[in-house]
Amino acid sequence: AQAYKIAVLPGDGIGPEVMAEALRVLDAIEKKYQVTFERTHANVGGAGIDNEGKALPETTVSICRASDAILFGSVGGPKWETLPPDEQPERGALLPLRKIFGLYANLRPAIIFPSLTGASSLKEEVIGGGFNVLVIRELTGGIYFSQPKGIEGSGRDRIGVDTMRYSVPEIERIAHVAFQAARKRGKKVCSIDKANVLSSSVLWREIVTTIAKEYPDVELSHMYVDNAAMQLVRWPKQFDVILCENMFGDILSDEAAMLTGSLGMLPSASLAEGSFGMYEPSGGSAPDIAGQGIANPIAQILSAGMMLRFSFGMVEAADAIDNAVATVLDQGFRTRDIYQKKAGEKLVNTKEIGDAVIAAL
Amino acid sequence: AQAYKIAVLPGDGIGPEVMAEALRVLDAIEKKYQVTFERTHANVGGAGIDNEGKALPETTVSICRASDAILFGSVGGPKWETLPPDEQPERGALLPLRKIFGLYANLRPAIIFPSLTGASSLKEEVIGGGFNVLVIRELTGGIYFSQPKGIEGSGRDRIGVDTMRYSVPEIERIAHVAFQAARKRGKKVCSIDKANVLSSSVLWREIVTTIAKEYPDVELSHMYVDNAAMQLVRWPKQFDVILCENMFGDILSDEAAMLTGSLGMLPSASLAEGSFGMYEPSGGSAPDIAGQGIANPIAQILSAGMMLRFSFGMVEAADAIDNAVATVLDQGFRTRDIYQKKAGEKLVNTKEIGDAVIAAL
Ligand SMILES: CC(C)[C@H](C(=O)O)[C@@H](O)C(=O)O
Ligand SMILES: CC(C)[C@H](C(=O)O)[C@@H](O)C(=O)O
Repeated sequence: AQAYKIAVLPGDGIGPEVMAEALRVLDAIEKKYQVTFERTHANVGGAGIDNEGKALPETTVSICRASDAILFGSVGGPKWETLPPDEQPERGALLPLRKIFGLYANLRPAIIFPSLTGASSLKEEVIGGGFNVLVIRELTGGIYFSQPKGIEGSGRDRIGVDTMRYSVPEIERIAHVAFQAARKRGKKVCSIDKANVLSSSVLWREIVTTIAKEYPDVELSHMYVDNAAMQLVRWPKQFDVILCENMFGDILSDEAAMLTGSLGMLPSASLAEGSFGMYEPSGGSAPDIAGQGIANPIAQILSAGMMLRFSFGMVEAADAIDNAVATVLDQGFRTRDIYQKKAGEKLVNTKEIGDAVIAAL
Repeated sequence: AQAYKIAVLPGDGIGPEVMAEALRVLDAIEKKYQVTFERTHANVGGAGIDNEGKALPETTVSICRASDAILFGSVGGPKWETLPPDEQPERGALLPLRKIFGLYANLRPAIIFPSLTGASSLKEEVIGGGFNVLVIRELTGGIYFSQPKGIEGSGRDRIGVDTMRYSVPEIERIAHVAFQAARKRGKKVCSIDKANVLSSSVLWREIVTTIAKEYPDVELSHMYVDNAAMQLVRWPKQFDVILCENMFGDILSDEAAMLTGSLGMLPSASLAEGSFGMYEPSGGSAPDIAGQGIANPIAQILSAGMMLRFSFGMVEAADAIDNAVATVLDQGFRTRDIYQKKAGEKLVNTKEIGDAVIAAL
């Protein structure tokens, strides 16, 4: 049987408990699809700091290097919030992982399931029937990683400096990801920039427009980032794939995710060239409810599904996971975060969602 | 009688027709408060391009220089959208005006009037009773204006570069504006940054924290920009004053404005050191409804009110304008953009709103 190596990085807060359910779902997939997932657990985030002295220990990097994909839980919590920013669990783990593994393409679906529209802050008139937006964010360039970056001078003469740089190949490759994704969905790409102010955006817009010519079946539009922040609120259904540079993608993907009202439902993928990728829930480590067994494991389970789809090419198994989750929602199973006290809903815990997904598989 | 000089820049689209109502309101203020407003009209935006060859003609700059404040309408439209970005009406007029006149502090209230909550995309549970957020955006620094900026190299070797720089004095002066504003309202400042990634944000957070010590009566919190984009959607009432650098302020102030659902109601002020300022509606030039006399002039009227308050120190007259607008809304007068077909609402045109505000004064 085919075997894949997975680096399992549960992290902090609810990370370990939702990860446990995703791993049980992978057990079920192993049986059903005659495949083996060799899993190696490693510390990351606060767990890395507490056990090995840093948010991304060397052993964790080695384990990831020896794997076909990384399944990531979530990191962070009050315990580590007083550390210097670049040693903190989130920043200290995620940024180096992205850079070391060249995870340049971040895919963040913002989906409202029709049965969960009530969880959104948006009115029923705005989101009736749900919406389905895929934010594709460039993840290894721009103002996150470009030089010079730092604080120059001393005292009141100090100047904080960051640099936003994009090269043509960096823009080209993320544009291809967006157009290819759009082809498999609504066939529309809205590219976000601030070309009326930023030179990097002028280049971005030009290159995205050029790449679009290779995808005549996909419709390309451009939107300024400030307008996009408004349009997401006004009428999210106008979007299919939203393509962003790193910083704009950070902001807009979070805005879009919150508009769904169900952060606990949203997976994400961060892809390298080739088949390697890292998969993680879009929500945080939710330290306030950690250890109680009540967290929603669906985002983690769907992240495992994205791993099968993008890193292992197991499209059928990935579809099966997506469908099983949809079935479980239709059956009315709800963890506390998505429970709306409606007829037909059953309030369940983390493990019961796992059980239901496995049963639906 | 006291006399003030106003540079009146109506601009494009609905700009001239909403400006006409604001000027009629100023006529009424002149009579009531024994003051004279000497107005000089000048071209800006598309009107500048068409009549004098550029979005910000020299004559317009001279007229502004000779004035105590600028009352600005709105600029832009399809006619000029194919020009190079830095010659277009918005970019080509606003950025130079900000730089030439040192308009470093942009105040953008995002207010839902209780009678207009229905216009928001947000659910009644989220915004019941309205909300009132003031976004204060640094407007002459950061990635908008810092060097190096440009496209280096040629062909596929090109690199687009922008630089985000902040000095200590730049951060200090905008922080003072935020704390002083908070003192007159809810006494809370939430400072937005991305200090887990950006060096300019690390300095920003440090300096804002230092300045906060001079305002012990004001509560300071810090929030990452991606989280802020979420929190505005989730629970806008948690905010009082939001303090942002230039780019984050561009995005979040637009998001907050759209959350109110009534862009036609929102004024803005861009202040220099001293008393000079520029005042303009937050919404756009709405070319689709221009010339029909149906646009909502309230944002322009409230902008004139902000001018009285911040540039002329006419607090009583400014309050009178704000109260008159509130009265007009209570009386049920609605232009098309805020008309909800509810009992007691009267659908009126641009001029009728002007009449009603003047009557209420
Ligand atoms: C923790 C932080 C560095 C990170 C980012 O800004 O990319 C996070 O917000 C995210 O979106 O994954
Ligand atoms: C037109 C543009 C340059 C401007 C900006 O980005 O500042 C506009 O979006 C605004 O917010 O006033």
